[in-house]
Amino acid sequence: MITGTTRLYAIIGDPIAHVRTPMAFNDWFASRKIDAVCLPIHIGRDDLPRGWAGLKSMVNLDGFIVTAPHKGEARQLCDAVEGDGVHTGVVNTVRREKNGRFVGTLLDGRGFVRGLQNEGHKVEGRRFYLAGAGGAGTALAYALAGSGAAALTLHNRTRAKAEKLAAGVKAAFPACDVRLGSANASGHDVAVNATSLGLEPTDGHSFDLGSVDRDALVAEVVMKPDMTPLLIAAKARGHKIHFGIHMLNSQLALMMQFLGLEPTREGA
Amino acid sequence: MITGTTRLYAIIGDPIAHVRTPMAFNDWFASRKIDAVCLPIHIGRDDLPRGWAGLKSMVNLDGFIVTAPHKGEARQLCDAVEGDGVHTGVVNTVRREKNGRFVGTLLDGRGFVRGLQNEGHKVEGRRFYLAGAGGAGTALAYALAGSGAAALTLHNRTRAKAEKLAAGVKAAFPACDVRLGSANASGHDVAVNATSLGLEPTDGHSFDLGSVDRDALVAEVVMKPDMTPLLIAAKARGHKIHFGIHMLNSQLALMMQFLGLEPTREGA
Ligand SMILES: NC(=O)c1ccc[n+]([C@@H]2O[C@H](COP(=O)([O-])OP(=O)(O)OC[C@H]3O[C@@H](n4cnc5c(N)ncnc54)[C@H](OP(=O)(O)O)[C@@H]3O)[C@@H](O)[C@H]2O)c1
Ligand SMILES: NC(=O)c1ccc[n+]([C@@H]2O[C@H](COP(=O)([O-])OP(=O)(O)OC[C@H]3O[C@@H](n4cnc5c(N)ncnc54)[C@H](OP(=O)(O)O)[C@@H]3O)[C@@H](O)[C@H]2O)c1
Repeated sequence: MITGTTRLYAIIGDPIAHVRTPMAFNDWFASRKIDAVCLPIHIGRDDLPRGWAGLKSMVNLDGFIVTAPHKGEARQLCDAVEGDGVHTGVVNTVRREKNGRFVGTLLDGRGFVRGLQNEGHKVEGRRFYLAGAGGAGTALAYALAGSGAAALTLHNRTRAKAEKLAAGVKAAFPACDVRLGSANASGHDVAVNATSLGLEPTDGHSFDLGSVDRDALVAEVVMKPDMTPLLIAAKARGHKIHFGIHMLNSQLALMMQFLGLEPTREGA
Repeated sequence: MITGTTRLYAIIGDPIAHVRTPMAFNDWFASRKIDAVCLPIHIGRDDLPRGWAGLKSMVNLDGFIVTAPHKGEARQLCDAVEGDGVHTGVVNTVRREKNGRFVGTLLDGRGFVRGLQNEGHKVEGRRFYLAGAGGAGTALAYALAGSGAAALTLHNRTRAKAEKLAAGVKAAFPACDVRLGSANASGHDVAVNATSLGLEPTDGHSFDLGSVDRDALVAEVVMKPDMTPLLIAAKARGHKIHFGIHMLNSQLALMMQFLGLEPTREGA
């Protein structure tokens, strides 16, 4: 029950009707008997500075999730930025500190990493092939390199974006062997599609599936359908596969940790 | 369940922990299966302009209740003011119009009037004696005169405040016979305590109970305790009595009407 003492959390975006975060957060609060509620807040595309000031003024609002189109501007408005928010230029989770400052981070890529780990796949020391250098690809590249991947090969239709991303990841994580690649994904432990290809049943693959090593894992970021054309074909070839939905599902715990609602795990 | 399509309502104040509006609103929404939620929003005493801009930016927020200390400043920030908000200089209910404008009103006094009516007491054509010229007294004075009371006699410890209030009510509602009074409440159909006297069991009365006509109703604005020293003594003298809580309880329907969630009643 919402009372005067209930703490507030939110997700801000435009549009907002499609978001699932309020249900995920509120189920989580209910199961732990936490006196808090998560709301959908619709802030117009060009109105974030005003909305941001309003969120600051709400003393009982402890944090919020940021979705399209506000992730980049939110990064600029934050008083401090941590983790993948620093390099990617976007944030999707913001918490209020005791001193009132808003601190943001990006957990998309960390959700993908945590999702792999939860499914029993190691990230540290492994060689990743990643197709896509948009929002999802960028988040995954920094999170994989930041989580100890041994090597990261980047491929994107628009090559200049992959080049820029490779340079950025290399500079941030020199220990990772970051390279520009082609459609050939051979020589890697995991091959990931982080493009938007796969949403449609007629979509092609973002890389040459035939080149993938036989014992490599094939992973998706596309969530709907769960079995994309890539995963269907990969399974038929005998690959272990990894669904796009794991990335989203694994983010909830990371968000709760960043918001201070759950203790951080060893190695999280 | 709160989803991305849920409409938002709020109560803003400082402090906020004590408010009961979220429970009242959310019960009301639940019983009517309305996809809306009411939240407590704590906006600091000096931070209302920033908070107000934030509320404006929240496209899916349809209205809110204003409590202390923001009622006066909210009146200034509204794009338009209706009803008792016009004369009293304070608002407690604000709705967003389709064009985005925030329109405010004050429903405290109207709640008192509706409470009397709901208990079977007429206001139109009746002669009221009113002690108190603070926030509650001011709201009641305008609402009673605006609801067709034939006469209104005002009395207050600090006489200058009663004088100012009488002049204001007279100018706004010339049809009502507004006068300055003393502690003598004789010659009226209803005698109302709208001071803060009555919160303590040792409190005296704000007017001379012995002067009240035998068949007159004695009414309170003080809610806790329900039986104030004044009501205890009035009952002992054989008067009909009227509790302070009716004023609050009757406001919910008025708020829902002003917010466009319930059709207005005839004569409401
Ligand atoms: N599971 C999750 O939690 C999660 C989270 C975020 C996003 N996603 C999913 O990730 C996907 C990508 O989202 P995003 O935010 O990264 O989008 P984005 O920023 O628009 O980037 C789209 C990416 O897909 C590539 N692409 C698009 N059409 C292509 C085509 N016909 N052939 C080859 N490459 C193509 C783009 O290449 P160019 O640079 O050449 O245009 C770019 O790399 C979406 O399907 C989204 O649902 C999932
Ligand atoms: N039932 C409801 O929905 C509802 C709504 C609002 C308020 N209330 C109740 O109404 C009461 C008054 O609130 P308010 O906002 O009007 O407060 P306020 O603005 O501070 O005004 C207080 C009033 O009480 C008078 N007063 C205070 N102490 C007095 C004393 N010892 N002797 C004589 N008069 C005295 C003041 O007279 P001076 O001008 O001489 O100081 C003034 O008229 C509170 O108890 C509150 O709980 C009830």
